[in-house]
Amino acid sequence: MLPVNSQRVADLIAGLAKFGRTEAGITRLAYSSTDKAAQMWLLKQIEYLDLEIREDVLGNLFLRKPGLDPALPPVACGSHLDTVIHGGAYDGMCGVVGALEAIHMLEDETLRRSIEVIVFRAEESSRFGYATIGSKLITGKATPDKFAHAAGKDGVTFADAVKEWGGNLEAYQKALLQPGAYKCFAEMHIEQGKVLEETKHQIGIVHNIAAPTRFKLHIHGMADHSGATPMGFRKDALVSAAKLILAVETAAIREKENGTVATVGVVEVDPGSINVVPGKVTLWVDLRGVDTESIQRTLKEIRQAVQGTARTDGITIEEEMLTSDSPVALDEALAAQSEAICREQRKSFLHMNSGAGHDAMHMPAVCPTTMLFIPCRGGISHNPAEFASNEDICAGIEVMAEILKREAK
Amino acid sequence: MLPVNSQRVADLIAGLAKFGRTEAGITRLAYSSTDKAAQMWLLKQIEYLDLEIREDVLGNLFLRKPGLDPALPPVACGSHLDTVIHGGAYDGMCGVVGALEAIHMLEDETLRRSIEVIVFRAEESSRFGYATIGSKLITGKATPDKFAHAAGKDGVTFADAVKEWGGNLEAYQKALLQPGAYKCFAEMHIEQGKVLEETKHQIGIVHNIAAPTRFKLHIHGMADHSGATPMGFRKDALVSAAKLILAVETAAIREKENGTVATVGVVEVDPGSINVVPGKVTLWVDLRGVDTESIQRTLKEIRQAVQGTARTDGITIEEEMLTSDSPVALDEALAAQSEAICREQRKSFLHMNSGAGHDAMHMPAVCPTTMLFIPCRGGISHNPAEFASNEDICAGIEVMAEILKREAK
Repeated sequence: MLPVNSQRVADLIAGLAKFGRTEAGITRLAYSSTDKAAQMWLLKQIEYLDLEIREDVLGNLFLRKPGLDPALPPVACGSHLDTVIHGGAYDGMCGVVGALEAIHMLEDETLRRSIEVIVFRAEESSRFGYATIGSKLITGKATPDKFAHAAGKDGVTFADAVKEWGGNLEAYQKALLQPGAYKCFAEMHIEQGKVLEETKHQIGIVHNIAAPTRFKLHIHGMADHSGATPMGFRKDALVSAAKLILAVETAAIREKENGTVATVGVVEVDPGSINVVPGKVTLWVDLRGVDTESIQRTLKEIRQAVQGTARTDGITIEEEMLTSDSPVALDEALAAQSEAICREQRKSFLHMNSGAGHDAMHMPAVCPTTMLFIPCRGGISHNPAEFASNEDICAGIEVMAEILKREAK
Repeated sequence: MLPVNSQRVADLIAGLAKFGRTEAGITRLAYSSTDKAAQMWLLKQIEYLDLEIREDVLGNLFLRKPGLDPALPPVACGSHLDTVIHGGAYDGMCGVVGALEAIHMLEDETLRRSIEVIVFRAEESSRFGYATIGSKLITGKATPDKFAHAAGKDGVTFADAVKEWGGNLEAYQKALLQPGAYKCFAEMHIEQGKVLEETKHQIGIVHNIAAPTRFKLHIHGMADHSGATPMGFRKDALVSAAKLILAVETAAIREKENGTVATVGVVEVDPGSINVVPGKVTLWVDLRGVDTESIQRTLKEIRQAVQGTARTDGITIEEEMLTSDSPVALDEALAAQSEAICREQRKSFLHMNSGAGHDAMHMPAVCPTTMLFIPCRGGISHNPAEFASNEDICAGIEVMAEILKREAK
């Protein structure tokens, strides 16, 4: 195996970062002309790899390095090139660039199976409001009717965006991957958390991908003049909301050992005036985990707090469920192989779960799937400050190349 | 004394309500053409009272019914005609209409002192960001430099608005009221709270007017991915904020017997996204009371909670003081007289304090001052749903007329 070429990795990451960059960050929305330009530029840079290029009718890109036996299901790896609004240069890109560099490292190897890099389209939800659309559709985890009419701020629907790209959403069945289409799938990604950094590990071996349960709590109190309403005469919706914010925190801490997390990220106060006792407050709750029973227990505890607060505070609280997905277990044999590789390569590793969603969460419908995390500074992602060191990226690529080599042998 | 004419009262209230009314409520900002039109209309309606009309250089209006001895300081009463944006028909108007009707009721009385109705300009803060500007200036509680350059959404400064009205802010000293200029001042106003309604009293006799202490708490945590950040790795600014919202509530409840109230009315969450642990939260706190020591104790307790939360949560919290005014004590002899009048007229009454600010809070600098509250439905004010029954308004006017009669004898 050839050594990793850290300069080429750095150049590809830096080159891609120019597409959609402004002072406020990188904005390269899925299916946009910027997304297309970035992909065209990348294909130009990697011509020397002489890969077979194929794009499906949804715009997902497949780059194949043929093996000795083309009849065998290929080994797949990859990630995405689109970003959020005002995003960074690493989320998605590390996985694509890393997969391409891994293929380069295997140039001197003789492998039976083909290796295929997949660039999934529309991983981020920033344009159409739905995440991992490309991987969801080709794995049969969703059908186009769910997204076809979703439109971004420019008014262009998903169906039209696919068409503009050169695809055809109506023919999406042509893009479906059959179970067994690949020997396995591996994705490398920045952690988007700070556990690796704070615990000083180079590689995260991902076992499960959490699924978000998201809901709003509408808390109806009574708006009153803040000066003229004595404490005993109030139904302050924000005071009740504060109890629930703490209850959400407490419920998740109780399930900490099971990896469950819960967050109130949005608070809407009505009327939101310094001289009015809040009459209505809406909390947006994000509950995630990899253990379905733990998620259910947490949700149950939050609901008990909701009922208790409504009763003791004499107010009404409605729950509005937004999404409730199931966590995904990745392949344990592949994870064990990653551990063995890390040990051989003397890289520090941590077994962990992914709190964020990824294209890899849909691939188990097709083939055994694994994920590698690399550290990102401060755990920051979806932000111009997003950063992964070249050293960490290359360490991840070395593990990835070895996975591909062993699987493609 | 003539009986109160409830039809005339209802007609004047309804007539004034037409000026600035839209579907969203009544908007009659201070010094606006709508404010002027309402005043002109009112003056036309009350021509039959044959009052002496005077306007000072700030646009405050004085309507005098001369007494037998014009050399004696007159008895004054009044309120304001301006409204908030999307306000109601009673806040201010009840006091002006009530004062005028009280003068009518005294037509058959022979009184030594003149009675003067004052229509204060710019009581509401909605146009220039400052409340009770007219009364503050003529009582010497503030000087024009504080407001002169304050501008509303239309960009017109206070100084220019006074000029457009026909006044002259530079000559404001001509408008100053000297101590002793009036025998006394009485203002009737809707309660803007629901204590009278819920305790079933017709008249509130106000002893003190609370002053607001307003400050912001800036809570600096750490923004992180809500899925990828385990509970133990977070510095969630909103969780700390929730503790402080409850601490503000608890501190005020402890001082409930002293009439102190505290409210968090505004919450700003940054970034305010469902998939991000809140990194920064700003709370706007409104603390009011009539007992300076109680206010100080409450503030001290809130500050202790701030320090304790910062310490235990490992975050930083800054306090930004916005205003810190002193409560105002009204005249006890006048309050005792109001009680006697209520007893004679067999009206139920409650001794209370005002949580909201009023023009009357500045008049003690000039003369003994008192306030009467009447119930308003649901305690609602500054809202199109603001409502006081004609019966309650007229009950207040009967008390007001008797106060004026006794003071002007």
